[in-house]
Amino acid sequence: MSRSHYSGEVNEAIIGQPVSLKGWVQKRRDLGGLIFVDVRDRSGIVQVVFNPEISEEATKVGETLRNEFVVHIEGLVVARAEGQINPNMKTGKVEVQVTNASIINAAKNPPFAIEDNTDVNEDLRLKYRYLDLRRPAMYETFKMRSDITKSIRRFLDEEGFLEVETPILTKSTPEGARDYLVPSRVHEGEFYALPQSPQLFKQMLMVSGFDKYYQIARCFRDEDLRADRQPEFTQIDMEMSFKSMEEILEMNERLMVQMMSDVKGIDIEPKFQRMSYTEAMDRFGSDKPDVRFGLELVNVSDLVKDSSFKVFSGAVEGGGQVKLINVKGQAANYSRKDIDALGAFAAVYGAKGLAWLKVEEDGVKGPIAKFFEGDAATALTERAEAEAGDLLLFVADSSSVVADALGALRLKFGKELGLIDNSQYKFLWITDWPLFEYDEKEGRYFAAHHPFTMPFEEDLDILTTSPEKVRAQAYDLVLNGYELGGGSLRIYRRDIQEKMFQMLGFTDEEARAQFGFLMDAFEYGTPPHGGIAFGLDRLVMLLAGRTNLRDTIAFPKTASASDLLTDAPSPVSETQLEELSLSVSIQNNEKVPE
Amino acid sequence: MSRSHYSGEVNEAIIGQPVSLKGWVQKRRDLGGLIFVDVRDRSGIVQVVFNPEISEEATKVGETLRNEFVVHIEGLVVARAEGQINPNMKTGKVEVQVTNASIINAAKNPPFAIEDNTDVNEDLRLKYRYLDLRRPAMYETFKMRSDITKSIRRFLDEEGFLEVETPILTKSTPEGARDYLVPSRVHEGEFYALPQSPQLFKQMLMVSGFDKYYQIARCFRDEDLRADRQPEFTQIDMEMSFKSMEEILEMNERLMVQMMSDVKGIDIEPKFQRMSYTEAMDRFGSDKPDVRFGLELVNVSDLVKDSSFKVFSGAVEGGGQVKLINVKGQAANYSRKDIDALGAFAAVYGAKGLAWLKVEEDGVKGPIAKFFEGDAATALTERAEAEAGDLLLFVADSSSVVADALGALRLKFGKELGLIDNSQYKFLWITDWPLFEYDEKEGRYFAAHHPFTMPFEEDLDILTTSPEKVRAQAYDLVLNGYELGGGSLRIYRRDIQEKMFQMLGFTDEEARAQFGFLMDAFEYGTPPHGGIAFGLDRLVMLLAGRTNLRDTIAFPKTASASDLLTDAPSPVSETQLEELSLSVSIQNNEKVPE
Repeated sequence: MSRSHYSGEVNEAIIGQPVSLKGWVQKRRDLGGLIFVDVRDRSGIVQVVFNPEISEEATKVGETLRNEFVVHIEGLVVARAEGQINPNMKTGKVEVQVTNASIINAAKNPPFAIEDNTDVNEDLRLKYRYLDLRRPAMYETFKMRSDITKSIRRFLDEEGFLEVETPILTKSTPEGARDYLVPSRVHEGEFYALPQSPQLFKQMLMVSGFDKYYQIARCFRDEDLRADRQPEFTQIDMEMSFKSMEEILEMNERLMVQMMSDVKGIDIEPKFQRMSYTEAMDRFGSDKPDVRFGLELVNVSDLVKDSSFKVFSGAVEGGGQVKLINVKGQAANYSRKDIDALGAFAAVYGAKGLAWLKVEEDGVKGPIAKFFEGDAATALTERAEAEAGDLLLFVADSSSVVADALGALRLKFGKELGLIDNSQYKFLWITDWPLFEYDEKEGRYFAAHHPFTMPFEEDLDILTTSPEKVRAQAYDLVLNGYELGGGSLRIYRRDIQEKMFQMLGFTDEEARAQFGFLMDAFEYGTPPHGGIAFGLDRLVMLLAGRTNLRDTIAFPKTASASDLLTDAPSPVSETQLEELSLSVSIQNNEKVPE
Repeated sequence: MSRSHYSGEVNEAIIGQPVSLKGWVQKRRDLGGLIFVDVRDRSGIVQVVFNPEISEEATKVGETLRNEFVVHIEGLVVARAEGQINPNMKTGKVEVQVTNASIINAAKNPPFAIEDNTDVNEDLRLKYRYLDLRRPAMYETFKMRSDITKSIRRFLDEEGFLEVETPILTKSTPEGARDYLVPSRVHEGEFYALPQSPQLFKQMLMVSGFDKYYQIARCFRDEDLRADRQPEFTQIDMEMSFKSMEEILEMNERLMVQMMSDVKGIDIEPKFQRMSYTEAMDRFGSDKPDVRFGLELVNVSDLVKDSSFKVFSGAVEGGGQVKLINVKGQAANYSRKDIDALGAFAAVYGAKGLAWLKVEEDGVKGPIAKFFEGDAATALTERAEAEAGDLLLFVADSSSVVADALGALRLKFGKELGLIDNSQYKFLWITDWPLFEYDEKEGRYFAAHHPFTMPFEEDLDILTTSPEKVRAQAYDLVLNGYELGGGSLRIYRRDIQEKMFQMLGFTDEEARAQFGFLMDAFEYGTPPHGGIAFGLDRLVMLLAGRTNLRDTIAFPKTASASDLLTDAPSPVSETQLEELSLSVSIQNNEKVPE
């Protein structure tokens, strides 16, 4: 007999009706000759009651039930007695009087309880991922993931975007992160690469006149893993032709507004805040600022450039900056030792020291107070909009160290002092990015976004002469301090693309070998085009309120890129290697193919 | 200025209105001082007219236009003069009087014309795929592909299926086709494999209680390529728990009915024909019969088993069969030489000979007619429902050779004699498959579907004793003679899965090393489950009326698994190989990394 209802659907509207349930035993309690069992499925839990006076046979089955048994329950929906109602359960006003029961499959005792609030070692969760995913909060996350893609697909379909699949077996390109390689059997000694993004293929589709493309695309990067990176990740990827940056941003604002309404039931501001890269770095010390709270960076370089405190004046003299954050009303809560700890925190971001002042009614106090007396103190406190009880924290260094260190301190205080309203979703565009970044170590320019980003038209003249000043027609979308994604208008002229590769240190031969098809395509009638890509995993993480990307991916890899469930990667047979004309050049004795 | 309309949208409803078009020059004709240009975009083509009396400046631009230039045209929609109307164009009643024109990007003369009916070498098309995809029929195919997935997603969403992404970096398993391998940098000497299907992961999701899963999933097989295979292909993949085979088939019938209505506007029969594997082989000589026409195989083994024609009687005696097809009314059209050619065709499928009889008013004629006189001839013609003018073609051999050879001949006649109504879409379920296939060469059983297929409950007793008789709870969906996909109920008990692996020649250790996590999972409360997967590329091919799978994939590989556009696979740098602890064990001098 088929399932008539999911557990979560059994409620007071169907009292008196027979139901047929199929699910898992969440728990069993024997009480006064009755057996109470919570039956769980993806929709929720309902209580079923075995009563020997109703069915002796079913009750015998009930007696044998253990946690996680798969069961088929038939019975009658009845109202719970007044005192038995559980207001915390959506099915808490009813229970099911069991008339028939059978065990569909038995279960061993699971290695951890199937509950949301478990404190289980993550490796164990990943090894038994099929049990971990039974926890209701995990299912809810994947339900939300599915809802997000559904909403975005519907929006883009209605906007006339065509979903097109691009290849996973592609060509290795040297720029960017490390590629995952796939040896070819047919072409001995040659390799495919897994794509870091569908970038070039989506540009080719624009050359083809497809006009509007999207794909929810798997991408791959063989990076040294950090807690919030995965070897494979998913991008909401789109590209369109003949659209201005303004049109692209506006369309994506509507996309996000629709998605937030569909998925979270929240109406966000339809027009997103915009900020140039320079302003973001200046005010928040970050290119992905969390604008749900203030605590902005205050530049006091001009006020301290002639100070007798040489750390400050020296920094300004050397081309650097002095900035502060004003931690409102916290002077009394931070001891010298506490502030030393903050200094150690700032040091992680390169700050050689963290100077501080406590503002009191009669001036500023602290080890450097002696350098700032009278007007100097007033100038600082006025600039900082400080009043008695405030704590001023200073970093004097190169502009990038100042931004990194104070930006990190700002976020730390934002979280620890409860300055952030977690119910808010503040979307923010960051625009006017630099086109290049200069790498001191390698002594060359890198593309700040990627080598296909279009410079500002008015900066084309200085592309090769003053590359550091060239701005990119690029934009990032930031949500609550996380980069959701980014995009740009693309280069669509061969001459500009060639110059770009030159600036990035490619020889003509290298550029032609890697990207010849792209530059050829530009000569056969390429429309202006641009696009954007959002990180789906991170979007799910933020909307589902998770703190770990792995919780948004059904079968994730660990920090060392292993799948603990299936035990991948793993050794392969000699035959497989021979077919690929490959040999492993180290001896790995720890693990041999079975 | 933005585009106001796509070219294909310019029609008599907007006569008198200004339009702003952006697109490609399809062709230019100069005529009587006017310049006529067809402007193409993804929606179609519209004619624009440059008239120096309207705008001298625009006409100067018009004079410089060449095929495939990207242009911006502003102008007024006007009705064409009576004699100028083109009824074959959806914009053929109007044209655009150009007031402003600019060249957005120039174009070299393309290596082939952008037209549907080109006879261009496919390698050239693939190298310039971005031009090939400009051909309207190509765009239409990808539009249909997008429409198909949109329709299927909508249906499955409404049925409560959750879209879940499963990994691309997975574990290599020895059963089945050859895996593509991905070397791990972190785990030296170890490899991931690209998935041949999400099979085990979708089963894990059922163990997790996700209940209904789907994914439009990329899959990979490193096979020796045939014309209709690609190294990467796309599956519409689904799995559900607690459903009977009947429920799964019924749901998929509704899915296909909805999709055919959405995409093709065709109402197909809601209830699909069903046929057992045995019946399909018997009647059509194929496990994916095209049932749009008859010409069925007729078994005459019993009639000829005592015949003095030893080829026939010997075949039956040796455990084989004699079957015929009756090619109605074609006796006069096939000479001895023609039939010899048919014999050569049948030989490709293993038939040692093709016997034949022509039916005439007074009996049968042909080289073997002397063995079939009087009643023997009557018995044959009656069984074959033959009348004067019919051609009977016989194969006498093992049942599999008879099926292959006559099945192939049947299809050949179906196509060549125009027996097939190409407007029909006949869906057909093939059920009651054998669980195993015996491989004579390797001397062992293989899984006819895959090792996770559930046998018929009533055949469990003979699983190890008479494996050749065990039937699988498996089903294939066939459309017009092509296998669209297949599925099964899955094994969900450890003991059955273990027996299955034993039958397939796995040692306990091998089974545990490869599939230990699956068998473990079965012990923690696994629901009965089953699913199906459809080949999206083939579905698109059939519905779009294409004959080549490559035309359904935006950036396909050639028969030797190369991407001619980007030149993948390709050599990689020594550094990349060193990081992977790999060395290539052959010397490939043809191509070195640049």
